[in-house]
Amino acid sequence: MERMTIIDIAKMCGVGVTTVSRAMNNHPDISEETKAMIMKVIKENHYVPNNSARNLKRSASKTIAVLIKGITNPFFNHMIKVFEQEIQRKKYSFFLQRVDENQDEIEVAIELEKEKRLKGIVFLGGYFSHSQEKLNQLTVPFVLSTIGMTEEFDLNNYSSVSVDDFKESYRMVDYLCNQGHTKIAIITAAMDDVSIGKLRYEGYKQALKDNGIDYNAQLVWCMKENIESYTMENGYTVTKEMLETKEEFTAIYAISDNLAVGACRAIIEAGKRVPEDYSVAGFDGLDISFYYNPSLTTMKQPVVEMAEETIKILFDLINKKITHSHKIFPAELIVRESTRSLL
Amino acid sequence: MERMTIIDIAKMCGVGVTTVSRAMNNHPDISEETKAMIMKVIKENHYVPNNSARNLKRSASKTIAVLIKGITNPFFNHMIKVFEQEIQRKKYSFFLQRVDENQDEIEVAIELEKEKRLKGIVFLGGYFSHSQEKLNQLTVPFVLSTIGMTEEFDLNNYSSVSVDDFKESYRMVDYLCNQGHTKIAIITAAMDDVSIGKLRYEGYKQALKDNGIDYNAQLVWCMKENIESYTMENGYTVTKEMLETKEEFTAIYAISDNLAVGACRAIIEAGKRVPEDYSVAGFDGLDISFYYNPSLTTMKQPVVEMAEETIKILFDLINKKITHSHKIFPAELIVRESTRSLL
Repeated sequence: MERMTIIDIAKMCGVGVTTVSRAMNNHPDISEETKAMIMKVIKENHYVPNNSARNLKRSASKTIAVLIKGITNPFFNHMIKVFEQEIQRKKYSFFLQRVDENQDEIEVAIELEKEKRLKGIVFLGGYFSHSQEKLNQLTVPFVLSTIGMTEEFDLNNYSSVSVDDFKESYRMVDYLCNQGHTKIAIITAAMDDVSIGKLRYEGYKQALKDNGIDYNAQLVWCMKENIESYTMENGYTVTKEMLETKEEFTAIYAISDNLAVGACRAIIEAGKRVPEDYSVAGFDGLDISFYYNPSLTTMKQPVVEMAEETIKILFDLINKKITHSHKIFPAELIVRESTRSLL
Repeated sequence: MERMTIIDIAKMCGVGVTTVSRAMNNHPDISEETKAMIMKVIKENHYVPNNSARNLKRSASKTIAVLIKGITNPFFNHMIKVFEQEIQRKKYSFFLQRVDENQDEIEVAIELEKEKRLKGIVFLGGYFSHSQEKLNQLTVPFVLSTIGMTEEFDLNNYSSVSVDDFKESYRMVDYLCNQGHTKIAIITAAMDDVSIGKLRYEGYKQALKDNGIDYNAQLVWCMKENIESYTMENGYTVTKEMLETKEEFTAIYAISDNLAVGACRAIIEAGKRVPEDYSVAGFDGLDISFYYNPSLTTMKQPVVEMAEETIKILFDLINKKITHSHKIFPAELIVRESTRSLL
């Protein structure tokens, strides 16, 4: 039987799990009104916190949870499939939990861990800027998969699988520079981003610098905050605005293929051509980068290998073969039709 | 705590849930070897069938399960989001279960129902050709969402939300005929398909007939069975073969947008143009149909409205306001750049 978790209650109430926990524990730091609302939902749903001795006894189930931010991102589809297969091959059961963009995935994980007696956790995608203190509250092994870490964490305290987002982004922009582009616009994450968005943006800046090109803030465009991030729609909307300015540029580097697809469409609608008028480069290596017209120059992440390695590390941690591991995969620069040389 | 279900055990063993059930119940219709293997996995995982009185007592959780075939299909992404929101708004918890293409979703549902004490089920996508007898084994309300029903079921025995796949497919092909196309190739499902694939294919045949065009079997192409169905890769591979034949055609009707994207890419790689050399039409109205170059003529399904109606009907069933309901939404023919008139 599927028991309700504190996460379900939190979602129903539209609050965080910590707030639900406070309500249940008579914590002073919560308004009476909020507490009453939460307790009403708890009562209506017959929710019982799952920490009694009876439940501890029944903890034999071997479950691995995958917490994913942004399930609509096609980048994750192949990875989820591999996770499911590999976890089942190990005779564990697989539990997929979506985390909303505004939810704190560590809080969610801490509660899931208690409720579901997890044996391991994979954090997939999204931002990750939690305090070491908070990470330490996780008591089962976990692996951060395709998450950019920009904060300074002690590498001995966690495991990860990713590409080097800074370096691979640098390589893409360096490639464009080598093709004679000096006016390269970027579509990137918000400036307060602390994950892959920041790393890819820093790679862009460094590549320009090393190629002797002055940084021009007019060519830096952030995704719209009122549109889902990393979508074709976002790239399209940003590029339409970009084309309306007087600022000159010869190339657009979008930090994901979806954004690049949107950028191409905006250029084509403006009566311009890719790559004749503007070169467009993406990142990720999604299927669509091959099938789009023109096909997209991109930096392909080896998603299947990365997913397999994530599970391998997780089970090495569970079986205490290792204490931590950081695996960085190389990405592959694939030059296709959407970029051209100016030389 | 997440308890293991019979479905997890079945997946781990690589067998159906019925087989696991047989193993546990000493059913004669199972080999000793298979039974031993299953019982070993059950033992290792400390799996306990979830039908004791103690568990029945703890059945207060209000859970709606969504069973989805083909989670990698972008068509479902928007719908899943709406399901999650609407179910949480009703203060129920939302449980998403993937069903593999070779799994029987009714068997999975029957077991989930027992294990998780569901209050309702949504079947999303995929094939549906189960006996009435089997459907009757479901004891909680359920809605079939975006599933084509080709078999004759008693309409009083189930509820559904969909477009009229036959009629909307007819409209698309009729539109192409009205543009002067008489040699229209189709990329469709396998000939033994009994779901939306069959309905859309029948719509194609009827539209040709009503336009006085002879059916030409050489222009009927089925998706490759060794490639994931309804993917860009599948449409691409089929179209490459199609272009190598001597058979003449002026238009390709692909029964999904993903297939149409693959078809366009194959045409472009062959040095031909869309729509100058070949018109290409899709179905579904995915985001990519707008952003692709050329943008795709398609039949857009109102996915958000369909998802909302699915949940509305399910709760009307749960609250016994209705006994069944069949809601058919109109699709919208969107003419874009990928098709042209020959007149």
